[in-house]
Amino acid sequence: MAPEVFVHPQGLCESASVGAGTRIWAFAHVLRGATVGRDCNLGDYVFVEGGCVIGDRVTVKNGVQLWDGVTLEDDVMVGPCAVFTNDRFPRSPRMAAVGARYETKGWLSPIIVRRGATIGANATILPGLEVGACAMVAAGAVVTRTVAAHALVHGNPARVAGWVCVCGGVLAAVAGRLCCPLCATPYLEQDGALVAAAHGDA
Amino acid sequence: MAPEVFVHPQGLCESASVGAGTRIWAFAHVLRGATVGRDCNLGDYVFVEGGCVIGDRVTVKNGVQLWDGVTLEDDVMVGPCAVFTNDRFPRSPRMAAVGARYETKGWLSPIIVRRGATIGANATILPGLEVGACAMVAAGAVVTRTVAAHALVHGNPARVAGWVCVCGGVLAAVAGRLCCPLCATPYLEQDGALVAAAHGDA
Amino acid sequence: MAPEVFVHPQGLCESASVGAGTRIWAFAHVLRGATVGRDCNLGDYVFVEGGCVIGDRVTVKNGVQLWDGVTLEDDVMVGPCAVFTNDRFPRSPRMAAVGARYETKGWLSPIIVRRGATIGANATILPGLEVGACAMVAAGAVVTRTVAAHALVHGNPARVAGWVCVCGGVLAAVAGRLCCPLCATPYLEQDGALVAAAHGDA
Repeated sequence: MAPEVFVHPQGLCESASVGAGTRIWAFAHVLRGATVGRDCNLGDYVFVEGGCVIGDRVTVKNGVQLWDGVTLEDDVMVGPCAVFTNDRFPRSPRMAAVGARYETKGWLSPIIVRRGATIGANATILPGLEVGACAMVAAGAVVTRTVAAHALVHGNPARVAGWVCVCGGVLAAVAGRLCCPLCATPYLEQDGALVAAAHGDA
Repeated sequence: MAPEVFVHPQGLCESASVGAGTRIWAFAHVLRGATVGRDCNLGDYVFVEGGCVIGDRVTVKNGVQLWDGVTLEDDVMVGPCAVFTNDRFPRSPRMAAVGARYETKGWLSPIIVRRGATIGANATILPGLEVGACAMVAAGAVVTRTVAAHALVHGNPARVAGWVCVCGGVLAAVAGRLCCPLCATPYLEQDGALVAAAHGDA
Repeated sequence: MAPEVFVHPQGLCESASVGAGTRIWAFAHVLRGATVGRDCNLGDYVFVEGGCVIGDRVTVKNGVQLWDGVTLEDDVMVGPCAVFTNDRFPRSPRMAAVGARYETKGWLSPIIVRRGATIGANATILPGLEVGACAMVAAGAVVTRTVAAHALVHGNPARVAGWVCVCGGVLAAVAGRLCCPLCATPYLEQDGALVAAAHGDA
């Protein structure tokens, strides 16, 4: 753990792999084997299990539990009480009928959240999925399929509802062009994906 | 903090504005700048950020995170693990592309929960909304629009499903009149709103 | 509390009724009057109220709050941040209009989760319901009706989506027969319920 890491007196940090400038708040718990990058903020009651990998400048709001198999790339935002998973067929590993399945890590289905994406408050992400770069999972959504880069999804199960800008603004179509109402960045939709447009593109 | 405030030995209270008779339980955390009224009950793992305002006789069940911009008026009930928000376009404030937006509080969208309302267990309230007096947000609902006083809403997104009494009973229509099955209080629906009726009203 | 119970230095166990081999992790809180069986695992931030009854070999993942009136039978799995309830008409008990209702336990509606069932991550269970043996409540589901044994339910409100095996596999119909794709156990559907089939059954 870098000397510049801040751990609240009531927080627990057992990992040696936490980057400089990262802050770990009260009742948070970072386990041995977890990797956390630089300049992150882990709120109260955030739990990071061994095997979880977190990039730089990631914000994890209060109450989020991050399991083995979860990767959050740089600049990700995780809203309060968002929930991650890693087991497609969860049973109590202590039950005799399934004990063998839990003897190895074969049951583990990873989740990856790409650079700059947002997982909204109280959203749920099912195991084995990817949330694309700069995607926005709305608050309360239950994500059951992989989410494309820059897509906005909401509902249970989550459905695509639009596109979002790097800055988080929901794109509006103006004269046949997609544009961010917050920062005026123009985009184009090509083959079902969103791409940045030069300002002069028609 | 009034001398009659109870703080569990494992709770943290850093606010000087907590009313008499309020109890703050284990692993709860009330920050400096938070305002909490009299005779409240804040369960385990409840977090109250600076800027949050809580009235009198409010019950906040375990695991609820209350942010700057959230106001809970008197007699409000917040069920376990209900989730509040305050940012319509959430991105990690540490990401270079959005850092400027987070330099002031311009990004903050407040939520107000009016007197006597209930936010059900694991419900999610989106930013910028009001939940009306004595409204009832059902467990697991995702509230995306302002909720009228006395309205019952459920689902994702939350839809109006009926009316509720001050006491929480779901009103039933009996001979063209609305009446609470729990306490027999009569109500009238006028112009899409619920109003108390004198017992003799037709 | 049996001497073989492990309580993390930052966990709190105030119950004398916790079985041998059970582990209680950081910031978990088991209250006096709670009953917990043998060989259970209660994760970080798990809260067990007096009156809650937990069987043997039960796994409760992080952030789950278990109330008076909740029973988890043997071998149950509760995913992270799943939410239980026990009040059909929740209001702040400190509000004058409803104080009398909370003077006795008449308001309390119990929940029972039968042997071997799974409550998925961030699912919500409404009061007064039963989740049948080996049922599987999907992540993010909001359960508003009793769930049959071996049923898979998902959505808000939760709907039946299939059948699951004791081991958690989702049954597939092969040549008119139901079979688990994970462990090959055959089942029959009879009168709307699932029953184990001998391997030779047609």
